Amino acid sequence: MIPGPTPVPEKVLQAMSQHPIGHRSGEFQSIVERTNAQLKWLHQTNNEVLVITGSGTAAMEAGIINTLSQGDKIICGDNGKFGERWVKVAKAYGLDVITIKSEWGQPLDTNEFKSQLEEDKNKTIKAVIITHSETSTGVINDLETISKLVKAHGEAIMIADCVTSLGACNVPMDKWGIDVIASGSQKGYMMPPGLSFVAMSERAWTRYEKSNIAKYYLDLGPYKTTAKKNSNPFTPAVNLYFALEQSLSMMQSEGLESIFKRHSKHSAAAQSGMKAMGLKLFAAENHGSPAITSVEPENIDAELLRKEIKKRFNILLAGGQDHLKGKVFRIGHLGFVSDRDLLTAISAIESTLQSLGLLTTEMGQGFIAASKVLNE
Amino acid sequence: MIPGPTPVPEKVLQAMSQHPIGHRSGEFQSIVERTNAQLKWLHQTNNEVLVITGSGTAAMEAGIINTLSQGDKIICGDNGKFGERWVKVAKAYGLDVITIKSEWGQPLDTNEFKSQLEEDKNKTIKAVIITHSETSTGVINDLETISKLVKAHGEAIMIADCVTSLGACNVPMDKWGIDVIASGSQKGYMMPPGLSFVAMSERAWTRYEKSNIAKYYLDLGPYKTTAKKNSNPFTPAVNLYFALEQSLSMMQSEGLESIFKRHSKHSAAAQSGMKAMGLKLFAAENHGSPAITSVEPENIDAELLRKEIKKRFNILLAGGQDHLKGKVFRIGHLGFVSDRDLLTAISAIESTLQSLGLLTTEMGQGFIAASKVLNE
Repeated sequence: MIPGPTPVPEKVLQAMSQHPIGHRSGEFQSIVERTNAQLKWLHQTNNEVLVITGSGTAAMEAGIINTLSQGDKIICGDNGKFGERWVKVAKAYGLDVITIKSEWGQPLDTNEFKSQLEEDKNKTIKAVIITHSETSTGVINDLETISKLVKAHGEAIMIADCVTSLGACNVPMDKWGIDVIASGSQKGYMMPPGLSFVAMSERAWTRYEKSNIAKYYLDLGPYKTTAKKNSNPFTPAVNLYFALEQSLSMMQSEGLESIFKRHSKHSAAAQSGMKAMGLKLFAAENHGSPAITSVEPENIDAELLRKEIKKRFNILLAGGQDHLKGKVFRIGHLGFVSDRDLLTAISAIESTLQSLGLLTTEMGQGFIAASKVLNE
Repeated sequence: MIPGPTPVPEKVLQAMSQHPIGHRSGEFQSIVERTNAQLKWLHQTNNEVLVITGSGTAAMEAGIINTLSQGDKIICGDNGKFGERWVKVAKAYGLDVITIKSEWGQPLDTNEFKSQLEEDKNKTIKAVIITHSETSTGVINDLETISKLVKAHGEAIMIADCVTSLGACNVPMDKWGIDVIASGSQKGYMMPPGLSFVAMSERAWTRYEKSNIAKYYLDLGPYKTTAKKNSNPFTPAVNLYFALEQSLSMMQSEGLESIFKRHSKHSAAAQSGMKAMGLKLFAAENHGSPAITSVEPENIDAELLRKEIKKRFNILLAGGQDHLKGKVFRIGHLGFVSDRDLLTAISAIESTLQSLGLLTTEMGQGFIAASKVLNE
């Protein structure tokens, strides 16, 4: 129950464990053709979705360095570890970064984006970068509103880290006018880590032509050219493609609406359960991510609790990152997670709190509250 | 029988198909600890071998951009598609490239390296880059001699693409004084593609400190820091690590000497078999790679032959790349390849040539010659 790697269906593991085939074979091209179409479906876009063998960071970095040039002014939202990372990436490549910060646990303030963009009369801002679902804090940022503001600005492009939002909640790329979306396989995709994905709008591709940042493995031009031929510029992780085709087929069978509802229900159940057992949510009210619930158990060592739950129930929860270590724990409910998994996790937390003498509410309240949401 | 992805043992596929685990868990750290030690064994080095989720190109690019700076003068050997690629990578990052070329099929001329390095009295050459086993032509370049010349120069570092040589023939990193070695999982490692490896000498790390090339995902500093803690800077392809541990264990059981002997025997058998059935080897005499045998069947359409062998025997041989398409075919005998596999491939080629009426020698000569080498 961590926010990645997420659980993987047996069918996907089986698909992955087939003997690899030549990445230049017709058989493999057929797989790429099918996954390319499936990826467009998942992103709700007509843009090509490119596949990189690498982590989500590789995809996000590719999105940034393929659309921008040294010295370009950009806005980067920073309200958690991943927001922080994109600031670092942007600075590593010599971009001129305006950081819009919120405290960890708080969402990005859309008004700050509004005023920065509106004040930029000379259209010097070339991009806005945000993390949609901030995995480190369990906060979902308002990508739809910020995308609209970016569109209204006219010059800037919208670059979004959708690593833990894609496949968990609605991210209609074309409808919202997002120019770059990056994601990773070990999240909503229900498969192991190793593949990452970048989708770019036509507008983003016009910026690609102007970009002066040096790159080779992460140069998306050859990925686009080869994607059109159902191929890849470099040897891809062939077995992860087998997994990708299987997992996306399962997602298509479930349907986007149904996937989003399931995640939203699990998120509501986890939040409700935690509150009912007297635990404080870390993410600001109404800004909890559908993928992950971050909990700040006051006067309780979160690491001790995590270890005890792992020991007694063999359920792994995520810990806090950086300054949140020991202060928060995080329940991942992203990807291949069922009502049973969610209810089991809530029950295990409540039972462990009781056994440690740390439960401040009547035993069973967390379980009852979570169950109620799941039954609605 | 292609030079990558190479055949994968069932045990490795089984290891890979386990459920992924958290990449920050103690269990995963133990795997990283073991694979780090195994990788040092394979590279015959005390240097840390870093693991990147990506293709061999990513590893090679990392080796180049982490040790050099814009404008640095370097020598790049180019006698095939991969040599060509490293010239492109170097130029993409603004390096000043002296190219030492040989025709495809010929080895790099070590004397040219000698004179270029000796003439460089002011020590302006910062690196020499070569491809050890040129997969596109089946030629093995003399890395040992070129490494010695680089050492004698004193300033330049030696960067080697060992993608199809590591795990196939002797590449003693420390003994030969190689500063950077790049490799990829789908070759001698006997596992699927998706992981790549860079080993860097202490001398290479001193250059890292001076490098002014912008990078983030391929910045090897964080890989080194986290490797010491048995971890990774980004989410790695966890399941491929499961495969890596298994395949390296199998390699350790076989032993380096025995692995090298097997590849050398298969290479000799393939060469002998091809010559005995009247086919011309593409690589210059005595410069054939232990990993791959490239064949130039005069007056025969190599693509037609490949297709017929695939159709009749379901054996996939590699075709020629770029201008060699249709002119050569390539037999991969790299990684998990047994005497049976090798003999089967030779027999299938001979039988197909006969069935197409293209065999110019007495039927059976190729089989007899290959078998003789294998039985020695």
